[in-house]
Amino acid sequence: MPKLRVHNLAVSIDGYVAGPDQSLENPLGVGGMGLHEWAFATRTGHRMQDTDGGDEGLDDELLAQGDVGIGATIMGRNMFGPVRGPWGGDQWTGWWGENPPYHHPVFVLTHYPHPSITMQGGTTFHFVDDGIEAALDRAKDAAEGADVRIGGGASTVQQYLRAGLIDEMHLAVVPILLGGGERLFDHLDGGPDGYECVEFVSSPGVAHVRFRRAPK
Amino acid sequence: MPKLRVHNLAVSIDGYVAGPDQSLENPLGVGGMGLHEWAFATRTGHRMQDTDGGDEGLDDELLAQGDVGIGATIMGRNMFGPVRGPWGGDQWTGWWGENPPYHHPVFVLTHYPHPSITMQGGTTFHFVDDGIEAALDRAKDAAEGADVRIGGGASTVQQYLRAGLIDEMHLAVVPILLGGGERLFDHLDGGPDGYECVEFVSSPGVAHVRFRRAPK
Repeated sequence: MPKLRVHNLAVSIDGYVAGPDQSLENPLGVGGMGLHEWAFATRTGHRMQDTDGGDEGLDDELLAQGDVGIGATIMGRNMFGPVRGPWGGDQWTGWWGENPPYHHPVFVLTHYPHPSITMQGGTTFHFVDDGIEAALDRAKDAAEGADVRIGGGASTVQQYLRAGLIDEMHLAVVPILLGGGERLFDHLDGGPDGYECVEFVSSPGVAHVRFRRAPK
Repeated sequence: MPKLRVHNLAVSIDGYVAGPDQSLENPLGVGGMGLHEWAFATRTGHRMQDTDGGDEGLDDELLAQGDVGIGATIMGRNMFGPVRGPWGGDQWTGWWGENPPYHHPVFVLTHYPHPSITMQGGTTFHFVDDGIEAALDRAKDAAEGADVRIGGGASTVQQYLRAGLIDEMHLAVVPILLGGGERLFDHLDGGPDGYECVEFVSSPGVAHVRFRRAPK
């Protein structure tokens, strides 16, 4: 059975996946970049930015694992871009340049229809306006038997957690305090019940926790 | 200068220091004991329960460090016991038996006066009903130049964090999800601003993070 997985979701010690005061200039909020420095420092992180070098080791391995066996990604609209409300023009094609680091179909949750966007390197952005289960169905079809990943952000992860649809969730706990922002474990109505920790390993800069939904 | 320190404050991945539905039978809430198993497993944890054995290693070292150089402890009333509102009788003498593992003066924050209670082994419980700063003053006097520790719980830590009075804070991040309960990083009004991570080390079961207030 293909799985729905969350990988490399970076969360601060005080529970935030983005800092306070998110804006176009500061899409991760104040201090939010500090959640991702460990990833950018790795070899996999360098490759995603089309640069050489970067550190090997645990952080790199776990970052890379997030791509293994994934055939499609689902993300929230705010992760795709800063436009809110109706789309207006079609200029915005994501934060990631002409060759996004997905290389597979990406399903963007939105309340407003938008034509698909084909990028270089195998990434196509599709826009789904009829709910998270429809998005999951389309992503599973597109993945052709491979797993589906939830790319983020917090609200999207929460919606799928609340619906009990996430099979595995890997969090990267980063030893910083953000003091505010977007909280991962919020609005869950008991959603995270029934997950057990199946892996807990740490690098000098990150504690990696992998939860799996316990069999019912 | 004597410091105000927090040690071994166990917090779940979803940010709780106690589980949901706290009660007399279940003072740590549902699942809350899972936050403390690492501590009970150590040699220091065994000694606190007057038993031999227990594991050495990182968790044991950090648990033991929480006592080093401490001359007095401050705790919230709910950590001292389950009685709410006026004290009624004087029967309750804490959760810890006749010889509590403090062995120094302990200042309990309360809105209701209560005579001091002298226990075996050097622990005396004093009850402070005129605020957190008064409690800190009294604890500092009693510590005679040594540091003062905040024993917990979450609300007490939050009050001192909000007032900017905590110098060092060691959290033990435990890879479980509690799904609800008492959240550490809440009601802070920016209180945790200005702390930097000065130590981040992990055992197989716990990620230990030590924050220090950055010089202004």
